[in-house]
This record gives sequence, C-alpha cells and structure tokens, in this order.
Amino acid sequence: MHRLQLFIHRSAPVPLRSTSLYSHLWQHARFKTQGPTEQYGLKRFSTAEATVETSDPARMREKTLTMATLNPQVKAVEYAVRGPIVIKAGDIERGLQQGVKQPFTEVIKANIGDAHAMGQQPITFVRQVVALCCFPELLDSPTFPDDAKQRAQRILQDCGGRSLGSYSASQGVECVRKDIADYITHRDQGVPSDWNNIYLTTGASDGIMSILKLLVSGQGRSRTGVMIPIPQYPLYSAAISELEAVRINYYLDEANCWALDIEELQRAYLTAKEHCQPKVLCIINPGNPTGQVQSKKCIEEVLHFAYEENLFVMYHDLKISNYCQFHSFKKVLYEMGPEYFNNVELASFHSTSKGYTGECGFRGGYMEVLNMDTQVMAQLVKLLSVRLCPPVSGQAAMDVIVNPPREHEPSYAQFTKEKSSVLDALAHKASLTEQILNSVPGIKCNPVQGAMYAFPQIFIPPPAIQEAQSLSMAPDMLYCLKLLEETGICVVPGSGFGQKEGTYHFRMTILPSPEKLKVLLEKLKEFHLRFLEEYSQPEPQITSQGQHREMSKQPD
Amino acid sequence: MHRLQLFIHRSAPVPLRSTSLYSHLWQHARFKTQGPTEQYGLKRFSTAEATVETSDPARMREKTLTMATLNPQVKAVEYAVRGPIVIKAGDIERGLQQGVKQPFTEVIKANIGDAHAMGQQPITFVRQVVALCCFPELLDSPTFPDDAKQRAQRILQDCGGRSLGSYSASQGVECVRKDIADYITHRDQGVPSDWNNIYLTTGASDGIMSILKLLVSGQGRSRTGVMIPIPQYPLYSAAISELEAVRINYYLDEANCWALDIEELQRAYLTAKEHCQPKVLCIINPGNPTGQVQSKKCIEEVLHFAYEENLFVMYHDLKISNYCQFHSFKKVLYEMGPEYFNNVELASFHSTSKGYTGECGFRGGYMEVLNMDTQVMAQLVKLLSVRLCPPVSGQAAMDVIVNPPREHEPSYAQFTKEKSSVLDALAHKASLTEQILNSVPGIKCNPVQGAMYAFPQIFIPPPAIQEAQSLSMAPDMLYCLKLLEETGICVVPGSGFGQKEGTYHFRMTILPSPEKLKVLLEKLKEFHLRFLEEYSQPEPQITSQGQHREMSKQPD
Repeated sequence: MHRLQLFIHRSAPVPLRSTSLYSHLWQHARFKTQGPTEQYGLKRFSTAEATVETSDPARMREKTLTMATLNPQVKAVEYAVRGPIVIKAGDIERGLQQGVKQPFTEVIKANIGDAHAMGQQPITFVRQVVALCCFPELLDSPTFPDDAKQRAQRILQDCGGRSLGSYSASQGVECVRKDIADYITHRDQGVPSDWNNIYLTTGASDGIMSILKLLVSGQGRSRTGVMIPIPQYPLYSAAISELEAVRINYYLDEANCWALDIEELQRAYLTAKEHCQPKVLCIINPGNPTGQVQSKKCIEEVLHFAYEENLFVMYHDLKISNYCQFHSFKKVLYEMGPEYFNNVELASFHSTSKGYTGECGFRGGYMEVLNMDTQVMAQLVKLLSVRLCPPVSGQAAMDVIVNPPREHEPSYAQFTKEKSSVLDALAHKASLTEQILNSVPGIKCNPVQGAMYAFPQIFIPPPAIQEAQSLSMAPDMLYCLKLLEETGICVVPGSGFGQKEGTYHFRMTILPSPEKLKVLLEKLKEFHLRFLEEYSQPEPQITSQGQHREMSKQPD
Repeated sequence: MHRLQLFIHRSAPVPLRSTSLYSHLWQHARFKTQGPTEQYGLKRFSTAEATVETSDPARMREKTLTMATLNPQVKAVEYAVRGPIVIKAGDIERGLQQGVKQPFTEVIKANIGDAHAMGQQPITFVRQVVALCCFPELLDSPTFPDDAKQRAQRILQDCGGRSLGSYSASQGVECVRKDIADYITHRDQGVPSDWNNIYLTTGASDGIMSILKLLVSGQGRSRTGVMIPIPQYPLYSAAISELEAVRINYYLDEANCWALDIEELQRAYLTAKEHCQPKVLCIINPGNPTGQVQSKKCIEEVLHFAYEENLFVMYHDLKISNYCQFHSFKKVLYEMGPEYFNNVELASFHSTSKGYTGECGFRGGYMEVLNMDTQVMAQLVKLLSVRLCPPVSGQAAMDVIVNPPREHEPSYAQFTKEKSSVLDALAHKASLTEQILNSVPGIKCNPVQGAMYAFPQIFIPPPAIQEAQSLSMAPDMLYCLKLLEETGICVVPGSGFGQKEGTYHFRMTILPSPEKLKVLLEKLKEFHLRFLEEYSQPEPQITSQGQHREMSKQPD
C-alpha cells in the first residue's frame, strides 16, 4: 500500500479511479510539493479509503460530451442528402468491394448533385487555369494555352506573394470579385453590379449560412421567421434548426409544375405572423429538389410581395443551362423600377458545384448582396473575417467560370465543345428521365427544367404506409430503403425535403451517364411495379369472427 | 390620375410609396384578376388616397436588416487579427498605390500569420502534387517527378470519378485520413492513431468551431463554460460569443515564458463554477500569440486536471518546427497510462496554414478526436455533412504534408533543402526579433519558441493611457495606430488577444524576409523611443491657481 494523499474536490463527486503506479507516484510527488490547498476548498482523504476505491480498473467513467449534454441545436439538425439511406448505401458499397453478394453488382449513387463522381468530365480550361495558379512554373510550359496563362497571371497578381497559398481578403480576391461583377452586369444586359457587393464564399452553403446568421434575432413572438419552399434543399432547414430561427413553410404547387403561388406565400406569411416575425424569404431557382424554373410573372409577384412585407430575399441560383428560359431575380427587380430596385434587400448565392462545370470539391461560390444596410455590411465582413477567407483555389475556379474563353481566344473552340457536350447530355438525360418515369404506373414526374434533379411523385399503397409507420419511418424512406436493398440505387426520400401531407416523392439526380441512367430508370421501373404488387391493397374477406382479414402479401 | 386599387395590409403599417407607371399598371392588372381578398384581411383604399400619398419618391424606407435587428451574437463577435487597425492599413496601402504621400513607401503587414504573403516560397513538392491532382493530364508530363505523380494518383483514386471536383465524404478523402493516422502514429513513436478518428477540415478554424458547437448547451448556471488561455487566438472568443457559451479566462504566466500554470487553471475553474458549468479546456501549443511551447510536466498537469474535472480538451497544434522541443499532447496522455488515455476526451486541430508549408489559402486542416462518445460522433458527422466536405485541393495539400518525400525518393533532396531553408530562416528571424525587441527600453519580449509570432510587452506611459481613454480606445490600440500611421508597420494590439490588466502588448509575425524584418524592427525601435518621449511623464508644475499643469507634449 502506498502512502498517498488524494485530494477530492468538495463540490464535484469525482469517483476514485484506478490509476497506474506511475500516476499514483506522480500525484503523490506533485501534491507533496504544493502549498496548502484549503484555499481551493479541497479536502484530504486517507490512503486507506483511496486503496479500497481503486479496485475496479475497467470501469469506464462518464464522458463530458454525451447525447444528454450535446447542444440541442445540433441534435435538431437533419440533412437527408447525406442521411441514413446514403450511409447505408456506403456500407453496402464497401460490402460489395469486400465480396459480399447482393442482387446487383454496384451501387448507383443518384442521391447527391455531384457530377464528376458520376463521370462528367471537368472543363479543361478551368483545370488548366487552376493548375497554373497552383504551380506557376507551368507558365513556362508550351503545353498550356496563352489565354489560360493570362488568366492565371491575373489572378496571381492579386494574391499575396503571388501565391494561391496566401489568405485572400475575407471578401475574396479583388480581381475575382470584379470579374464576377462584370459577369453579372453582362448577364443582366447592363444592369450594373458593384464589385463591393460581391463576396466569395466556400460553396453557396457558406454564404447562405452567413447571411441567415445575421438575420436571426428576437425572442418568442418576435423571433425571426424564415420562409422556405416545400420541398426545399435541406441546408435551409438545417440552418434554421441550428440558429433556432422559426421555420415557415410555403408549398410549391406540384400540379402547376412546382410553381410559386403568391397566394400560398401570403397564406404562409399571415399564419406565421401569429407566432413569429417573418423576415426572410428564401427562393431556390431552379428548384432543388423540384427543378422548376420560375416564370417572370411569378418572380415579379414574389419580389413585390417581399417589398410589401419588408422581407429580406435570399435567392439561391442553381441555374445550369439555358434549356429553359431563365430570368435573373436582379434583372426582374431592376425592371420593376427604382422603388423596388433600390429597396428590396436581396442576397443571391451561386456556386461552382452546379452549372456545366460541376466543380463541387473546390468549394467555390459567391454571393451578391443588394441594398444591405452599410453598418450591417461591416458586421458581415467582420463575421467572415473570423474564418479568414474562402479557399483560394475555389476562387480561381469561380473566376474562370465567370470569365470563360472568348470567341477570339485559343481555347474557345475546345471550351465551347466541352460545355455543349455537358449541357446537351444533361438536356437529353432530363428528358429521358421525365419520359421513362412518367411511363411507370404510380409515378408522376414534372418536367426537369433547369437543374440536375428529378423529384417524381410516387404512389405508395396503404399497406406500405402502414408497414412504414410500424417501423417508425416515413413511407418514402421505406420505399427508398427497399429500392437500395433490391437494386443498389441510392436516391433521397421526399420526406427529407418536405412535401405536402399525404404525398410521397424521391429525389434523384440525372447525372449518371446516359447508359447508366437508362439502366437505373429501367431497374427503378421494375422495382416500382414489384413494389406496387407486393403492397397491393388486399381484397377484403369476412372471417368467421366477422372481421376483415388481409390476404397475405404476395411474396416477391 | 389612374383608376387604381391599392391593397393595404391590415396589420402592417406599410406606407404608400411612389411607383412608376409600369408598376401602377402592373398592380392594377394583377389585383383585378384575383379573387376576393377579404379572406387575407386586406382592405381597400380609394384611388384618391393613393395619389396623394405617392408624392415623395425619394424617401427611403426602413430596411429589414439593420443594426437594431442584427443577430446580437454577431454583434458580440470580435476578431482583432483582421480588425480596425488592419482595415486602416488596407486603406493606407490603397492610398499609397494611388499616389498619396506618407512618411513611408510601403505598409509592412506583420499582423497575420500568412507566410506566402510575406515572400515565403511554397514547397515545390506540395504544389506539384496538387497541380497533378488538379490537371491529371500532367501525369504524362516528363517535367514532374515520379514520387509526385504516385501521390497524385493515389489521392485521385479515392476521389469520385477520379476528380478533385467531386465532393469527398464529409470526414474527408479516405486515403488522406489514413495517411494522417499513419503520420500521427509515427510522430508519437508508435502510439496508435485510428483513421476513423481523423476528420479533414476547412483550416483548423472550421474544426474548432464544429467541436465547440457540439459542446455548448445548458442555461443560466449550467451553461457551458469554455476555458481559454489569455492571451488567446481570437477565434476562440469569437466562437464563444457566437455560440453564447461562457468564456473562462486562465492567464498564462508572462514572467515564466508564458507557461501554463496549473494553479491558475484551478483558480479559473473554481471561480467559474459559481456561474456556469465549465466543460471545455482549450490549449494552444505553441501559443498564439505568445509562441511558447509547453513543457512535458506542464502538459501532464493539464491533462490530469482535465481528467479530474471532466473537461473536454481542445488542443490547437501550431507547431512549425523543431527549434524547441515539442511534446505531443496525445503522446503525453498515452504515457500517463490507460486510465487517462482511454478516458480524457481530446480533440486536436491542425492546419496546412502554419508549419513550414504556410499554405493558408488552401484552407487545409484536420482534427483527431479521441474518446468521443460514439453517438456524439454520429452527430458530428451529421453536422459536418450539412457543409458537404472540406475543399479537396486542401485535403490533397494536407496529404503531402503528412506524407512528404522519403529518403530514397527523387524529390527528397530538393524538398529537404526547401524545408530547411524555411525553418532556418524562421529560427534566425525568431532570434533576431527577440534580440532587437529586448534591446529597446520599454519593450520586453519572451523567447519566440515554436511559432511565427512574437508578443512583446510594451511600456505605455500614463499620458498615453489617458489619451487612449479619452479616445475610447485601448492604450495598445492607440500605440499600434500611431505605429501604423508613422511607419506603415501593421501589427495587432494585445487587447485583441487579451492580457493581464495593466499590461500592454502587440503581436507581430516574424514572417517578413530577414532584410525587411530588420527594417521593421529598426523602425519599430525608433518609433518606440519617440513614443516614450512624446508621452513622457510631465514635470509637475504649480500654477498661480495652485494646480498642476502638464508641460506641453514635445512635438514629434
């Protein structure tokens, strides 16, 4: 038995634990050299007590950070795009790699808007410029075209020490901000864009989160309400949970190609005013997951509504192509006249992840902020400065996207060819998807207009709904789980995005190659027909007890 | 006068505004085709009222987002490293570029730990690998060495579609996580590291923020308290403000080379327990801004303390070199025995921004999380998934840092040469800085041991303190402002990091080139002597009214 003085803190019930001989001696040595400890409210215990208590080396102590002590705002967050189905898909995929047998040979991941992962090729020019910025020795290489070199040099000129490894200003590299402003001005046919209103961000998600953070305040009935479309991209609901804002759902009109209905906006707004202070209106255009592009008339109504109700508009721009006529919110606002253009507070969010470039991994993005109070602007810059700056390689990629090769430049031909190839493939896949899905009884799909997603409605028979409920899961979650398990196809249940009560959907991307997409859609069709059959409504039968008894489910 | 029906919302006092003819007609057209609006509680007004009200086109309406409605948590955030002095330095720099005359020809930015911005060269091998990942066509180029190509191929193999443009898993690219685990195991001479505990992050800041977010909970007296060193890197105070956690300051011991004093930790802890629930202990090693490296004994005491008081340890690793013996927290924990090693909840944070690579702009980083509750781990992954993934180019850079060329590899010689060159220069500059600063009367600087900062204490004469107070600014802020205005040198006032009451400091980096650093230090010395003279304590004089009157300040 060691002569040991142990100190037990008066107010903390710290149980004695077994410790190694080393620790015993260490503790003994330490406390022996210290001065009196009564001042800290510590008591001494005898060695006998210590020895008795230290008999259970294996007992694990309680952790500081547990589900009980976890931040409740974190607990509340959900993000279906990488949720349970996707986690399971990863497990199945790893199993396949290790030789586990499944009814399929590969997992087809149609859950996330990641073009390159599904085989889409990067645009050569983008990668050339970023590589040149990254390793400027390549500026001497004859294998790189002059227009790529010029752009790289221009970007590096504005980087500290001419290096991609320097922090940029928190708002981003200056020439990139200016290029973005020029791009927007051109896009909007002359409606001026001020580069001081442009902020580079780490993907669009980062910008959205920062702006929402500014907006959330108040308590109880004056807590900030945030209007979001249903169905929505679950970053919004996650951010609202995290920030403890009040979520205000407004339903898109499925029967009308997921159009934004002004009366529905008004309904949602007025209902919400009873219990919170609606201050923010979020729009996603083209919709995610719904893919619809809003009409000009609709955009005007929405902006007028925002003006009338003093709402801060957050506009998430997911446009990837021109296969459907697209109207910039800012341009429409401008055409509504100075009263609107100079007053409506509008932040728009863009990213390198979508569009024809599909550069998700670079985490490039920007936001344009209109009519923000100048003092609040300074607060925004302060908030952004804590994270220093967005990744400069992503800023470089964004610069190329807004400043692509022009007609007279060496890379123009190849660039245009690659871009068209991607966009044509997407248009083809969009229409193929819509067509095949709509040919399946029990599946109904709105046109895939301007984004990379389809969000078909699926009929789920009542017996399946009941089974899902008995398993405490959403019916479309059950559907997607079975789809994954039977076919290897991974999509995201509509419940992850929100949907009208009693309707069910899933979101799939149209990103797999045309061949793989056809396979996916055929397997999906077969699965759906099996599913309908498996869960077909039973014929009611009267038993001897006068009760209805379900016919047993037909085995698959 | 137009026949116009305007709708005024009953509950919102929306003043009538002038609108263009277009808008008048548009509104008229829209409402005419709508159905009855009484259901929404709207009233009608006559056209006469509308016309009268629309007489003031220029009146700006109140914005939704103002300083009054801004999130108070955002208002509370401060980040001195990019604060007012730095903003002013930027203004002065732009002025110089536009030809404005100053007593100096350039602004020397010694405020931020950005090595490349101050002329440090990137490590060739790092940039080669990242460029290869970015533009894999270069894999066919003879100008790239084989070891760089192998690493690039290995990284790309684990990227979706073999592209840097794919999202990675939220925890990061798998082979990078494994390489980091191997690196740590080697660094700690065999103490095993599990790659499942490794998470890639967007710089260290991102990881720190995520972990803190998990930890903050409770209300009032049970609100989470976070122990931070004073002086500290202001990301911590900013994060604590944003999350509304309770800040608990523990003071580093300046007289003892900024050592961490266990009694001070205990004092801070016990005091804090009166009003919050201390749960987190943050350590920065080497210190930022202080630069000291903690001794092994001190680390043991700290870990024992954390164990006893059930604190979650957040350990920010800023090691850049071996010019001072460095002890890994994890290794020390391991040596303390299984009771400690298997129980203390420890997250360590690392980044590509510091070290000999100085790759700030890539926003690369990782954290290793030990002994985290497994359910909480799942919550962490969920939280990270909302932001999808850290920039993949930064992950690639991090991979190279933990997996540099080995002795037998082609790039080894050049890599070693470049690395030594950077480290030798830093060691030289560290000692030069310490030496020159300590030669200035009224400046006292602890040894710059293991990071890129110096944090000298400066004597500020009482008249200067009074002037600062009259200007409502911290005395060291006044000092730094005058330093900037008179010499162009930009450093960060100690008040931005926290310091013992009545002491004043500033933080400067040792990153400028040796030549520029010498210039900086000489100018600083001259400035300081002038400052002391300008604000020298006056000789007391009795006036005819029997009052003391200050001798006028000697003009500069």
